Amino acid sequence: MPAPQWRPFLSFLTQELTQNLTPRFLTQLMRAAGGQFARQYALAEAGTVDAMREAMNQVWGELDWGQVEIREAQDWLVLTHYHAPLKAAFGAENVAWAGAFLEGAYEAWMHQLGADSQLRMTTAGPADASGTMVFLFGK
Amino acid sequence: MPAPQWRPFLSFLTQELTQNLTPRFLTQLMRAAGGQFARQYALAEAGTVDAMREAMNQVWGELDWGQVEIREAQDWLVLTHYHAPLKAAFGAENVAWAGAFLEGAYEAWMHQLGADSQLRMTTAGPADASGTMVFLFGK
Amino acid sequence: MPAPQWRPFLSFLTQELTQNLTPRFLTQLMRAAGGQFARQYALAEAGTVDAMREAMNQVWGELDWGQVEIREAQDWLVLTHYHAPLKAAFGAENVAWAGAFLEGAYEAWMHQLGADSQLRMTTAGPADASGTMVFLFGK
Amino acid sequence: MPAPQWRPFLSFLTQELTQNLTPRFLTQLMRAAGGQFARQYALAEAGTVDAMREAMNQVWGELDWGQVEIREAQDWLVLTHYHAPLKAAFGAENVAWAGAFLEGAYEAWMHQLGADSQLRMTTAGPADASGTMVFLFGK
Repeated sequence: MPAPQWRPFLSFLTQELTQNLTPRFLTQLMRAAGGQFARQYALAEAGTVDAMREAMNQVWGELDWGQVEIREAQDWLVLTHYHAPLKAAFGAENVAWAGAFLEGAYEAWMHQLGADSQLRMTTAGPADASGTMVFLFGK
Repeated sequence: MPAPQWRPFLSFLTQELTQNLTPRFLTQLMRAAGGQFARQYALAEAGTVDAMREAMNQVWGELDWGQVEIREAQDWLVLTHYHAPLKAAFGAENVAWAGAFLEGAYEAWMHQLGADSQLRMTTAGPADASGTMVFLFGK
Repeated sequence: MPAPQWRPFLSFLTQELTQNLTPRFLTQLMRAAGGQFARQYALAEAGTVDAMREAMNQVWGELDWGQVEIREAQDWLVLTHYHAPLKAAFGAENVAWAGAFLEGAYEAWMHQLGADSQLRMTTAGPADASGTMVFLFGK
Repeated sequence: MPAPQWRPFLSFLTQELTQNLTPRFLTQLMRAAGGQFARQYALAEAGTVDAMREAMNQVWGELDWGQVEIREAQDWLVLTHYHAPLKAAFGAENVAWAGAFLEGAYEAWMHQLGADSQLRMTTAGPADASGTMVFLFGK
């Protein structure tokens, strides 16, 4: 849950942002903000997917931003993020662009950990009713 | 102090906003967001300046957004806001536009309480080192 | 018709603007640009609606921006602008916000000529197939 | 010289854009617009630098947008664009971001003609007093 201190502020800021800027622009902006975030909250080296997940959840835990599960699929890593405060703060109709913050953060972290710079993080679809978001890392 | 949950997010969001949008635009956006905030967090009627201050501080207290003092000067009301979390969240260099959220909220509240719609809330100057901000309401 | 020199430039600029900024924001921006335009292209005094129309058409004629007819209705002035190059330059789907340039220019001109500052210029509806736009001035 | 039809419009549009959007954002926007322009005004194949220059000047000539000279330096192509209408339309203080339209167009044309997609077009410095702009294509 978002801390009550910023919930109304974020909600009215969101309203003004969406009245002036398109979802496309806000997605880019959030993705870039997430990338900067990941550069500052750099992960310790992680040799395995489990170590990677633990390093990420260390950061999310400290911020009360939920946690991530990581699963290896054929050519992809599938990252499932639970309990991010984004949906509650920005509203269900805005989580598509607000969630790009996580997409940008995860992509920057993967590249930081040594992944091929050609590989991209994408959002697998809209957040579900509980706010869970799924991201795919691959080509 | 801003809750740690949103502090890094707000900081990187701010960085992206200021790289794309001018302080003039961000001031207008924050002022409008503050006005919307005041419309939702409507004050109870207040017959005196003291009652007004108490009604406002009730809202700020619940959100952990500091508190306001109000002083009557010649043709003005002087509102001094202490301990807003804006400076810590947005940085000293951005508090000029981020503080327009408070300016917009105070102006909407004054009009809500019956003040002449011609009167305006303005910011008296930059926040001081402790983040205290002063607003003037009048012509 | 828009001069060929700027037609492709305006078309691709428009595409980028609409991908990043909402029609609401672009309307405000164009309205403000039109107001600034009218301040620089100030009209000579005009004691009658006919003189007003002639002064305005002097400006539009020099720029090859079509011409205006003005009709007095009950509580309104009805301004019909023919042959503005906006639809051809910005595309039919963007003329709603691009036309706010004319709305802002007409409003500033009316106030310049002494109209009550409370009165507003509004757009009566979408441009028709030929690009003709109708504006109403009144309360 | 910019056609008089659009000169005042562009000037007041520019004023509003710069009051709301940063030069950094406007640069990106113009660069993207230039890229789209080059995709629509695709060049015929060009086997030599001379053929390339002629194909480009064919487009610029039709639009009355000046002309380009291309010189091969060590690891670079140096493109010098004369008599673009950008400085006159946008003002000397805005040609830095407005000129990114040309930068984006030239880069897209080079990639279209088969240049390595890693190579980039950059602006060599501010436009000179006559509005001449220099672009470098390389790593």
